[in-house]
Amino acid sequence: MSELVANETLQPVLDHIDQNLDAAVERLQALLRIPSISTDPEFANEVHRCAEHLADDLRSIGLATTVHKTKGHPMVVATDDSAGPEAPRVLYYGHYDVQPVQPLDEWNADPFEAAIVEGAHGKRIVARGAADDKGQLMTFVEAIRSWKAVHEKLPVRVVMLFEGEEECGSESLEPFLNEHKQDLLADTCVVCDTGMWDVDTPAITSRLRGLVYIEATLHGPSHDLHSGGYGGAVINPANAITEILGQLHDKNGRVQIAHFYDDVTTLSDEQSSQWNTLGDADALVLESSGAKATFGEEGYSTLERLWARPTCDINGLFAGYTGLGAKTVIGATATAKISCRLVANQNPQQIEDNLRAFLEERTPEGCHWNITSFGVNPAISVPTDSPWLAAASEALSQIFPNPAVLIGSGGSIPVVGSFQEILGVDAVLVGFSLDDDLIHAPNEKFELSCFHNGVLAHAAILDKYAFIQS
Amino acid sequence: MSELVANETLQPVLDHIDQNLDAAVERLQALLRIPSISTDPEFANEVHRCAEHLADDLRSIGLATTVHKTKGHPMVVATDDSAGPEAPRVLYYGHYDVQPVQPLDEWNADPFEAAIVEGAHGKRIVARGAADDKGQLMTFVEAIRSWKAVHEKLPVRVVMLFEGEEECGSESLEPFLNEHKQDLLADTCVVCDTGMWDVDTPAITSRLRGLVYIEATLHGPSHDLHSGGYGGAVINPANAITEILGQLHDKNGRVQIAHFYDDVTTLSDEQSSQWNTLGDADALVLESSGAKATFGEEGYSTLERLWARPTCDINGLFAGYTGLGAKTVIGATATAKISCRLVANQNPQQIEDNLRAFLEERTPEGCHWNITSFGVNPAISVPTDSPWLAAASEALSQIFPNPAVLIGSGGSIPVVGSFQEILGVDAVLVGFSLDDDLIHAPNEKFELSCFHNGVLAHAAILDKYAFIQS
Repeated sequence: MSELVANETLQPVLDHIDQNLDAAVERLQALLRIPSISTDPEFANEVHRCAEHLADDLRSIGLATTVHKTKGHPMVVATDDSAGPEAPRVLYYGHYDVQPVQPLDEWNADPFEAAIVEGAHGKRIVARGAADDKGQLMTFVEAIRSWKAVHEKLPVRVVMLFEGEEECGSESLEPFLNEHKQDLLADTCVVCDTGMWDVDTPAITSRLRGLVYIEATLHGPSHDLHSGGYGGAVINPANAITEILGQLHDKNGRVQIAHFYDDVTTLSDEQSSQWNTLGDADALVLESSGAKATFGEEGYSTLERLWARPTCDINGLFAGYTGLGAKTVIGATATAKISCRLVANQNPQQIEDNLRAFLEERTPEGCHWNITSFGVNPAISVPTDSPWLAAASEALSQIFPNPAVLIGSGGSIPVVGSFQEILGVDAVLVGFSLDDDLIHAPNEKFELSCFHNGVLAHAAILDKYAFIQS
Repeated sequence: MSELVANETLQPVLDHIDQNLDAAVERLQALLRIPSISTDPEFANEVHRCAEHLADDLRSIGLATTVHKTKGHPMVVATDDSAGPEAPRVLYYGHYDVQPVQPLDEWNADPFEAAIVEGAHGKRIVARGAADDKGQLMTFVEAIRSWKAVHEKLPVRVVMLFEGEEECGSESLEPFLNEHKQDLLADTCVVCDTGMWDVDTPAITSRLRGLVYIEATLHGPSHDLHSGGYGGAVINPANAITEILGQLHDKNGRVQIAHFYDDVTTLSDEQSSQWNTLGDADALVLESSGAKATFGEEGYSTLERLWARPTCDINGLFAGYTGLGAKTVIGATATAKISCRLVANQNPQQIEDNLRAFLEERTPEGCHWNITSFGVNPAISVPTDSPWLAAASEALSQIFPNPAVLIGSGGSIPVVGSFQEILGVDAVLVGFSLDDDLIHAPNEKFELSCFHNGVLAHAAILDKYAFIQS
């Protein structure tokens, strides 16, 4: 933590956090060892088990906790009113579900072992969900645990909401927010699913890209064919899908879906300049991605392309024979999983419709598409002039070596938009993951120093939030 | 069989075949129940077991049989000299290995159960390898079994060669032919890995396309990335591979690999006219493929495209997340299995080199390819004026309702070229599979009527071959 001396309320909480870090790490490991993969129906029981495990832990802190059934995976809601009815109310959000682990053979350890290994920044915990999002949600859970252990009462009223469908489309979220609106209303909201600028520099995220995600299967022959007996005679869907998807971008990296950029606003010079002061973004991206060159739409910096420009990416592609060795087959189908990251003002449903049209217009004779949507959500901006954001920024600057910076994010956190729309509350996006945390990839990890400082920072945020007039 | 009366040597053999068909089918089922998938190292023991099983069966007929070890899968060689030293010597070739079975969930029965079911042409046997090639190789094995059962001595000297690597590149074949050349020399060679024109019309194949087959993996980032955190900042190999492979064909279906058509000869009007008399090839192709339209290089008929024009097909394609549901990932790599079917005069190695160059020239900045070759082989023609081909044609016409026709094949049978080159013998390509046998695909089958008539036809061929001066 920084050399600033905390006040006499906060300091014993920070000390308690420091003294009990090992136990906090063990609790995080226990949570990570539950394979709560929400996208795969085979893991539904594990997702439920994870919700119950988390709820038990929250009850052990003294929070009133309920596991709510939904049509999909459960919601966990925990409240604490020990601060009294006049205190501000803070809604915390996290998600306890995780991404699939494939390709499994690229992991150096079992993704659900939660091994602790040494890395460039000291010890780190390696597991699916370490940084996205179990390690992050435990930063505020542990801050509140320590605060209650030291002072019994919290300085603010707290309601926590933990979702189990963040990685699979959040279908139950909006119905749940509408149904439980009165229980969830709050003066501010803290979402812990974003990153730091670097290991010494905390960040608050004010822009999030939106998302459109479809799966499209091109059907040709009714069954797989021998490529000798039929090659040259009938359509090969694998050939056709590359010809079609190869047209998604022009030579300058611009997406060719109709009207794709119509509603994209130009970035202000001021915003662009602020981002330019952040440092060498290209170097960070190259180092954390292992790519040898940056790549993308011409005419924009890497941070502009990530935070202020929409994209279209193939996230999955398969056709024909994908096993070892050679098989002389023409596959009956070819499938692509395709997503678009969106920026402010783009209409997600319109983009999805135009993406579908892009594919349909290019359907080869005698073929047809089966297209499935995995949901859409718009890009999000949060106000940067609120007292909650300012207080969080001060608290972060108190704990970390460098002051907090304001950044964008290329990713999507749909719940932020839902909170704005349904609960009327803007989120403060505070998170502690690093660019090299390998989120959604093999060997996902979370630095224990980020975890430790994150817990301290949430204690400092609680301390500041107590004095904001709600 | 046809109404022609066979001579007194042949007739009792045909009768014996008819009377013992059930036992022959059971022997075929036993062979099909061994999953001899040669491309997948996990099945290596099964390939060996299949070789031993086949050898035991050949010994039970009275053939001197040896299972020869190779660097890959074994060769089975069986000989019979009961016809005496002056009789012509016939080399029979078949392969006992089979293709992989994926996608397994599209099979209506276990691919290695060898179930017998009713179909449009009566009973059929459903199994991987039913038509390619176990069902076919057993047609001449059973003919020889019955001939020996009836007459004790065969009318010709016989040497049979069974390969276990036909579906995975035949790497051991040429070294083996060179090493065992003296044991394998023959006056003619019969290869049973081709098809009929239709269920009533037997065929002899005189043209086979060649093959080039590579696997190419495009490497971008060093690991999988979150598509939010990196989409728009670095290369997505899945996007890139579609852009590259989408250029393999122009709008008229012509392959864009450099010099691809330079050595392709124009089809003679005579050949083209003969193929036009064969009937409605488009209807046959559409029915057996389940495609709704034919497709391919403009300016050529479907039979011309299949038998006399080269192609380029993606046989396998995979990148990113290929499981259920949505995963917002940018995969570190993208892989394509790509093959070219070649016609006479094309140099396979030159085509492979140019295919590799096509990919390398389009490598995006900061990326690289890993390219593996699965072997090359040239297109093949066999002389159509030999007495062996004429005798086989007469024998086929004797057994089936319609006379035999001369056709091409879109597939590749590399051994035919190796026999020409190393043993100096031209093959007679006689086979009994149908276009709808689903070779290399789920639910591969072989009609029992084709099997039965195939055994009868091989007995009739033996009868005629006895009288050809070698």
